[in-house]
Amino acid sequence: MADADERDTEPSRDVALIVGGGPGISASCARLFSENGMRVGIAARNPDKPVLQALEKSHAVRRYACDAGEPDAVERLFDDVVRDLGPPTLVVHNIDGRMAEIFRKEITEADPRRVLETLRNSAFSAFLVGQQAARRMRHNDPASNGARGTIVFTNASAALKGFPRSGAFAMACHAKSGLAQSMARELMPEGIHVANVPIDAAIGWTQTDGSRMHRLAGTSIDDNMADPDRIAEVYLQLHRQHRSTWAFEIVLRPWVERW
Amino acid sequence: MADADERDTEPSRDVALIVGGGPGISASCARLFSENGMRVGIAARNPDKPVLQALEKSHAVRRYACDAGEPDAVERLFDDVVRDLGPPTLVVHNIDGRMAEIFRKEITEADPRRVLETLRNSAFSAFLVGQQAARRMRHNDPASNGARGTIVFTNASAALKGFPRSGAFAMACHAKSGLAQSMARELMPEGIHVANVPIDAAIGWTQTDGSRMHRLAGTSIDDNMADPDRIAEVYLQLHRQHRSTWAFEIVLRPWVERW
Amino acid sequence: MADADERDTEPSRDVALIVGGGPGISASCARLFSENGMRVGIAARNPDKPVLQALEKSHAVRRYACDAGEPDAVERLFDDVVRDLGPPTLVVHNIDGRMAEIFRKEITEADPRRVLETLRNSAFSAFLVGQQAARRMRHNDPASNGARGTIVFTNASAALKGFPRSGAFAMACHAKSGLAQSMARELMPEGIHVANVPIDAAIGWTQTDGSRMHRLAGTSIDDNMADPDRIAEVYLQLHRQHRSTWAFEIVLRPWVERW
Amino acid sequence: MADADERDTEPSRDVALIVGGGPGISASCARLFSENGMRVGIAARNPDKPVLQALEKSHAVRRYACDAGEPDAVERLFDDVVRDLGPPTLVVHNIDGRMAEIFRKEITEADPRRVLETLRNSAFSAFLVGQQAARRMRHNDPASNGARGTIVFTNASAALKGFPRSGAFAMACHAKSGLAQSMARELMPEGIHVANVPIDAAIGWTQTDGSRMHRLAGTSIDDNMADPDRIAEVYLQLHRQHRSTWAFEIVLRPWVERW
Repeated sequence: MADADERDTEPSRDVALIVGGGPGISASCARLFSENGMRVGIAARNPDKPVLQALEKSHAVRRYACDAGEPDAVERLFDDVVRDLGPPTLVVHNIDGRMAEIFRKEITEADPRRVLETLRNSAFSAFLVGQQAARRMRHNDPASNGARGTIVFTNASAALKGFPRSGAFAMACHAKSGLAQSMARELMPEGIHVANVPIDAAIGWTQTDGSRMHRLAGTSIDDNMADPDRIAEVYLQLHRQHRSTWAFEIVLRPWVERW
Repeated sequence: MADADERDTEPSRDVALIVGGGPGISASCARLFSENGMRVGIAARNPDKPVLQALEKSHAVRRYACDAGEPDAVERLFDDVVRDLGPPTLVVHNIDGRMAEIFRKEITEADPRRVLETLRNSAFSAFLVGQQAARRMRHNDPASNGARGTIVFTNASAALKGFPRSGAFAMACHAKSGLAQSMARELMPEGIHVANVPIDAAIGWTQTDGSRMHRLAGTSIDDNMADPDRIAEVYLQLHRQHRSTWAFEIVLRPWVERW
Repeated sequence: MADADERDTEPSRDVALIVGGGPGISASCARLFSENGMRVGIAARNPDKPVLQALEKSHAVRRYACDAGEPDAVERLFDDVVRDLGPPTLVVHNIDGRMAEIFRKEITEADPRRVLETLRNSAFSAFLVGQQAARRMRHNDPASNGARGTIVFTNASAALKGFPRSGAFAMACHAKSGLAQSMARELMPEGIHVANVPIDAAIGWTQTDGSRMHRLAGTSIDDNMADPDRIAEVYLQLHRQHRSTWAFEIVLRPWVERW
Repeated sequence: MADADERDTEPSRDVALIVGGGPGISASCARLFSENGMRVGIAARNPDKPVLQALEKSHAVRRYACDAGEPDAVERLFDDVVRDLGPPTLVVHNIDGRMAEIFRKEITEADPRRVLETLRNSAFSAFLVGQQAARRMRHNDPASNGARGTIVFTNASAALKGFPRSGAFAMACHAKSGLAQSMARELMPEGIHVANVPIDAAIGWTQTDGSRMHRLAGTSIDDNMADPDRIAEVYLQLHRQHRSTWAFEIVLRPWVERW
C-alpha cells in the first residue's frame, strides 16, 4: 500500500490548506499532512491560538488570519497561500458554524441574527473556500492519480437528518451538502475531487499537551467517539484515490453510535 | 370525499397566508384556498403587481408588502395578518430565490454577493416565515383533523440533487429541506403539520388574462410541465390530512419528467 | 374539490384490485373505493376470512383466492378480474410479508427458508402483481386526468431504514421500493402512475363489528397510530392526481411518531 | 501510514473469503489481500475457471465450489474455510446477480422465474454469506483496530436508483442495501464492521494474461471506468479502519461518470 500511495501523488508538490483551525480535525489533518510531506497552511479567525502556534513549531504549519465568511478575505487567503506555499492541491473546509446561542433551542426562541450568522459562517464560507479552491486547482497539472486537487468539506449528522430544535444548524449542514454535490458534479470531470464527509458522532480532540479530550464533555477520548486522527487518515485516503474510483461522500461514525 | 373533507377542517376559521406572490403556485393557491372558504392573504415585495390586484378583485385576497428576508418585516406581516384576517392556520412559503445572475454559471464565475442574497431570500426567509408561523399556530385550537395549523415549503429539484453550475441554488434548496425536516420533527408532536414539496419540473403559470404559459419558455402550458392549479390541490390535501397519517414530503413531477 | 375529482376520473369504469386481504388497509381501501363508485376485487390466500365475506355483503366486493407469490396464480387472478369486473385501473399491492418466525431475531438466528419465503411473499409477489397490472393497464384509454391506471405499493418503515434484527424484512421492503422506482421510471411516461407508500407507524385496523383495534397490541385505535381509513384516502388521491403532477412516494406517519 | 496500518491489524491472522469469483473485483481483491499477508479463499460455482486456477498458482488462493444461493452449501463453505485457513476476518460478497435474459427488458417481458433467480443469486446469497460471516466473526478476538471482522457487500448503481427496464435488478440491489444496513446497525456494536459499496460505473477487469479489459465492451480499460484494483484498495482500507470511525457506505464512481 505504501508503494501504491507514493506512486499516486507527489508529496513534494502537495500543498494543503485547512480552513477553520482548532484542536480537533484541523490539528490532526495538519499533523498528518505534514508528516506525509505536504506543505501545510491553516486559516482561522484567530491564528494565534496556542494549538496553532504549537503546530507551527512542531510541524512548520503556516498560520493565516481569515474570516472565512468574507469574500475578499478568502480571496486574499488563497493569494497568500499560493505566494507562500504554492498552489493548493488539498483544501479542507472545516468550519462547523453551530452557535451555542441557538443550538438546541426551540425554533420559536432562536434569534434570527444568529441564524443568518450560522448560514454565513458555515455554508457561505464553504462556498467561498470552494470557489477559490476551484479557481486555483484548475490550473494544476494532474498528479499521477489523475487529480488536479481535492476539496473536502467536513460536515455533521445534521447534514443527513434535520433534528428538532436545531433548524439553523440543519439548514447550514444541508446547504453544505448541496453545495458539495453540485461542485462534485461540476468539477470532478475537470479532475478536481470534491468530497463531503459527515461525521455522525461526537468528535474528540487533542490538547496541546497531547492528551485527548471529548470536545463537549471534557472527558478523556476513547473509541466510542470519532477520533480526529482517524478522520484525517480518511481525508488523506480521499486525496490519494485514483480518479477511476472517486468517493464523493463518506459518513464516519463510531462502532457504538445509534443511527 | 367531500363530506370527509368538511368533517376535517372548518373553512370558516381557516386563514391562509401565502408568502411570495406571483402568477404561478401562489396565485393558484390563493384562488383555490379562497374557493374553499378560507380568508387569504398574500405577501410580496411588490404587492401591486397586476396578478395580485386581480386576485384582490376576484377572490378578496388581502395583499401585503413584505421583504421576507427581513426579520422585523416578517414579524410585522404576521401581526398584520392576525389583525386583519385572524391567526393563520395554513402558511405557504413560496419563494424560490434563484437569481438569473448566477443560475447555471460555473462556480468560479458566481458573484459571492448574489450567493449570499440567494441564501437570504430563500432559506433564511423560510426560517423567518416558519418561525412566525410556529409562534402563532401554537395557540390555535386543534381543528377536527387534530391540526393546529399547516406550514408548507415549496421547494425545487435542487433540494433532491445538487446540479452542476448551480451551487448557490443547491445550497438554498437543501437548506430549506433541512429546515423543514427539523421543524417537522419539532412541531408535528405539537400538532403543527410541516411539509416540504419539491416540484421536480418546470412550472407553468397563469396569465392575468387567464391563459396559461410556461414560466421560462413563454409557450402554452400543457401537462408535460407541472400545473400550479394541481400543486395547489396537493397543498390543500396536505392541510386537510388527519394527524394520524401526515405526509412530510411529497415530490411532484409530470408523467414525462426524467429523474 | 368534488367537482374537480369528478372531472378527473370516471368512477363508472374504475376497477380496483387489492392484492392482500385483511382487516386493515385492504378493507379500508375496499370500502372507500366502492363508496366512490368503483367495482372492487380483493385477492387473498384465504378469501373466506370473515372480514372479506363481510365486505362482499356490505360493498359487493368480489373475492379471489390467490397465492400472490405464484406467477401462474397471479396471471389467472388478473384474467378473472378482467372477465368479472373489467380491466383494472387501480391496483394496490398490500402484502407486508413479515414473518413472526424471524422478525426481530438476530441475523444469526433467522431460518434461511423463512428469509427466502419473506422475499417471495413480499418483493416477488409485488413484481408479479406489478407486471400483470402493467400488461393490462397499457391497453386502457387514458382517463380525463391522463392516467391509464394507478399501481400502489404499500410499504413499511423498513423500506426507509434497515433496522437491526430484521434483515429479511429490510431486504423485502427495500426490494419493493427499488421495484416501484424502476416501474415508475418505466411506466409513468406510458401514462401509468406508480406509487410507493411506506407507512412509518403501527397501523390500526377495523374489526368486523366496526370497532378499531391496534393490529399488534389489540388495544383500541387512536390517532397515535396510522388509521387505515386515512391511508385509503391517500391512495384515492394518488389515483386521482393529474399526470401533470404525479407523486411517486408518500411516507405517512402519525404526528407523534419519532423518525 | 504504513506504520499505522500495521498497528491496526495483524496480517498474520487475517483470513479473507471472497464469495463470487471472476476476473474483476474478486481477482483484484484476492491478489491485494494476499500481497498484504492474508490467507485468501475464493468461492465460485465453478472454481475451475482459468482466472481462479491462475490465482491459486500466483497467490496461493484456495478455491471452493459453492452455489451461494443454497443455505447448506454456504454453511459448508464456511466450515471448510475455517478448517483450511482459519476463521475469516474479512468476507466480501461479490455476486452481482444480473441476468442477461431479463436485464434491460421491459417489465412486461421479464420472465418471472429469472426474476426470482436474480433475487436468490444476489440478495438471498448475500444474506446467507452475511449470516455465516456473523456467526464466525463473533468469536474472533478484536484486532488492534477494535474489529472482530469486516463484511463488505459489493453493490451497483441500481442500489441507489431504480432504473427503467431493470426492475428485478433494482429489487436485488436495493435488497442488498437494506440487508447491509440492518446488519450494520445490528453487528457494528458487536465489533463487526459491515460495509455496502455500490460501484456506480462500468467495471473493468484483468485478463489472465495481465491485460485489462472492459467487462462488457471488451475494450481496453482506462480511468473512465472503475478499476477493480482500486476498488480492492478501498475494501482493504475499510477493513483497516479503526472502529472509532467506521464508514458504512462508500459509493465509488469514475471522475467522468454522470450521476
